[in-house]
Amino acid sequence: MSIASDVRYLLDRLEIQDVVQRYGVGQDAHQPGAAGAAWDNNVLEQWDDVFTPDATVDYGVAGDPGPAAPYRELAEKHRGPGLQGGGTMSVLANWQHFEAVPTVTIDGDTAVARTSHLHTHRGRAEGPDGWNVVEAGTFHDDLVRTPEGWRIRHRRLEIHYVDVFLTRAGLFAKDGLDA
Amino acid sequence: MSIASDVRYLLDRLEIQDVVQRYGVGQDAHQPGAAGAAWDNNVLEQWDDVFTPDATVDYGVAGDPGPAAPYRELAEKHRGPGLQGGGTMSVLANWQHFEAVPTVTIDGDTAVARTSHLHTHRGRAEGPDGWNVVEAGTFHDDLVRTPEGWRIRHRRLEIHYVDVFLTRAGLFAKDGLDA
Amino acid sequence: MSIASDVRYLLDRLEIQDVVQRYGVGQDAHQPGAAGAAWDNNVLEQWDDVFTPDATVDYGVAGDPGPAAPYRELAEKHRGPGLQGGGTMSVLANWQHFEAVPTVTIDGDTAVARTSHLHTHRGRAEGPDGWNVVEAGTFHDDLVRTPEGWRIRHRRLEIHYVDVFLTRAGLFAKDGLDA
Repeated sequence: MSIASDVRYLLDRLEIQDVVQRYGVGQDAHQPGAAGAAWDNNVLEQWDDVFTPDATVDYGVAGDPGPAAPYRELAEKHRGPGLQGGGTMSVLANWQHFEAVPTVTIDGDTAVARTSHLHTHRGRAEGPDGWNVVEAGTFHDDLVRTPEGWRIRHRRLEIHYVDVFLTRAGLFAKDGLDA
Repeated sequence: MSIASDVRYLLDRLEIQDVVQRYGVGQDAHQPGAAGAAWDNNVLEQWDDVFTPDATVDYGVAGDPGPAAPYRELAEKHRGPGLQGGGTMSVLANWQHFEAVPTVTIDGDTAVARTSHLHTHRGRAEGPDGWNVVEAGTFHDDLVRTPEGWRIRHRRLEIHYVDVFLTRAGLFAKDGLDA
Repeated sequence: MSIASDVRYLLDRLEIQDVVQRYGVGQDAHQPGAAGAAWDNNVLEQWDDVFTPDATVDYGVAGDPGPAAPYRELAEKHRGPGLQGGGTMSVLANWQHFEAVPTVTIDGDTAVARTSHLHTHRGRAEGPDGWNVVEAGTFHDDLVRTPEGWRIRHRRLEIHYVDVFLTRAGLFAKDGLDA
């Protein structure tokens, strides 16, 4: 290939990596923070730059939405009608959506990406005994090059397992926990 | 450096990243899926494009194989003789092999890569009380440039810890778990 | 943009990714290994190539140091005075600092990066019942281009949650655990 086409390929791969990461940023940047700190449920701040306007998602393995729901329906399922809260995420105290680096096949202006994800969710619990829900899965994305950059036009969720892990507060010296 | 050599370096880094990811894809693409769905143990579908034909692995810290076993011996340990099942993975219900982005030093046609991995394995359990085995470690890879692209010619497994985490089904509303 | 500027951007992104990974390598390369194996607490072997000499860190959400402490103060908090041990990490048996791929905005010779991290720490426990401390958070980094490459000049730690997971040894066949 020419240097120009090599550079185009490298930029495409990086852009697609960024799109995949942005999905997780959307979830994680909009969650309860420090006690009393203001926060909102507007995952679309990021997701509108992740998906094409008519993008569909198939989260059927999780119950719904599926197999061809608008991505905004997924956002409202998580974050409530109008993203005003009260969605499925409201049973959780905090979370992290950890996305791996995708393996990607690019064909001109379309691409297929496969990305592992490890999403962990701290449950709302009373007292020291708690739980953390871990979803380990793979996202299968169909992407398209748009004037605004690469976007996902269809995402299928594959879940390898969902496990609820038992937790207990107070077993360690907190000072041991600052990364 | 020249632009041509910079682009070559960038392509090399990306190819090596892809090789490292492909190892995990091999494990995860071949595991039990939806109830009743067909699946196979053929990790070599991916691993034959991860390792050189004569590549060796040192998984001695895990008991075996080591310190210089053919990678296909590792595949058969996991997936049984002839990859027909019954290997060590058969005690597990599902799993995810999450690979980080490697730090890499390239020297001409050879390279050394260090990659963190977080491999989680859901055990086969009866009833609500279960377990998930978490292996946190680092892969130390020696790679070589081949006509087919970069390949691992020796991989050494370093394990930081293996912990068995306690799990319990039914503590949450499943709808909260769709990524 | 020109090919030259595109290549510069790609190299910058990769260098910044490497800097972020190197922080975790510093923590993980300096921890207890195989029983009886020698090890040291010198995280600065890597961190001195992660941060500028006058870099500051804000780990206030973890108690301290913060909001503008020298990064070496963090190293000494973790690893003890003079990195001779006895710091906060000494309550842990082993650990892994898993860093995601950062999302980055570059502006000339400065950059802002956001990176998820999943840091897991196996506690020191007697008997089969143990615990593993999981910190899920995000690093917010301000970086600067230096003659030695990109370096972090300020890092702010955001913690999404810290959970102590319950573990128990002996629930599985160890041979099932070799990645």
